[in-house]
Amino acid sequence: MVISFEAMDCSVAQAAALIGDKWTLVLLRNAFQGMTRFDEFSEHLGVSSNILADRLAKLVANDIIYQRKVPGDGRAFEYKLSPKGYDLFPLIVFLNQWGERWMGNAEGPHIEIIEKNGRAPIRPVQVQAEDGRVLTANETLFRSGAGGSSVLEKSVAIISRRRQPRTF
Amino acid sequence: MVISFEAMDCSVAQAAALIGDKWTLVLLRNAFQGMTRFDEFSEHLGVSSNILADRLAKLVANDIIYQRKVPGDGRAFEYKLSPKGYDLFPLIVFLNQWGERWMGNAEGPHIEIIEKNGRAPIRPVQVQAEDGRVLTANETLFRSGAGGSSVLEKSVAIISRRRQPRTF
Repeated sequence: MVISFEAMDCSVAQAAALIGDKWTLVLLRNAFQGMTRFDEFSEHLGVSSNILADRLAKLVANDIIYQRKVPGDGRAFEYKLSPKGYDLFPLIVFLNQWGERWMGNAEGPHIEIIEKNGRAPIRPVQVQAEDGRVLTANETLFRSGAGGSSVLEKSVAIISRRRQPRTF
Repeated sequence: MVISFEAMDCSVAQAAALIGDKWTLVLLRNAFQGMTRFDEFSEHLGVSSNILADRLAKLVANDIIYQRKVPGDGRAFEYKLSPKGYDLFPLIVFLNQWGERWMGNAEGPHIEIIEKNGRAPIRPVQVQAEDGRVLTANETLFRSGAGGSSVLEKSVAIISRRRQPRTF
């Protein structure tokens, strides 16, 4: 039986249910570039109005963006990132950097996300220990927290049948 | 006209084309937990064999995972993360942490990714300047690199019509 992603007691699955869609990801990229209007997203992405309206509605329903009247213009609406959506910034930066690393252009990067003041490059988005050391996947482990995760317990049970250590 | 995501000269779109799918993201989560077999993914996710085979084939075609014979077992195959896939670790950790922050369980986290040695918590995945300062989206900007990006130029042109600064 397939249970809905939102109902899974796994934070990765819950996040994947909200942002695991290519249109959603480029919409968020555009929002972080400062795009706010339906017509702007539509013109830029060349996507059907149906798909665009569906993805925007889902993002609004999940409090990742919100819709408001444009100040000083009674007729126009704009979409803005809510705090939950603004907190997705590392995701967009990571996708930019990973895309450039592995599918980059021989002539140089397509797009760079840099520091505004000083126009300086930024660090690669990485996983770090509390003291700042960079950690690889091999140096970490997944464990159930106080809230519990039947999803994780099930995967551990499945994997442990093989009795092989996790290596990459 | 809609052009394919892979053909867009934008690294976020290229990355979104490969990982912008909820099944792909939970497959990668499982791979980072150490899962390697088709039957294991199938049992854990409860997904149809068609969808699972499609997503695995796409990941193999894009060099995110590879398939090999299990050493010492002439009949069995396993899927392993390739370097390009292993480099997605910050994405999975970010989704875990973001999911816990915004959709978490009142009783505590469902899943924690921690340091193996010492069982210590890890830092939130963040965007950092070269000197380690944490940067918000407002402190950064997107610019075309040496490889050029018609996608970015088009979004800049669309947004600049409004002549409003980017604020969040």
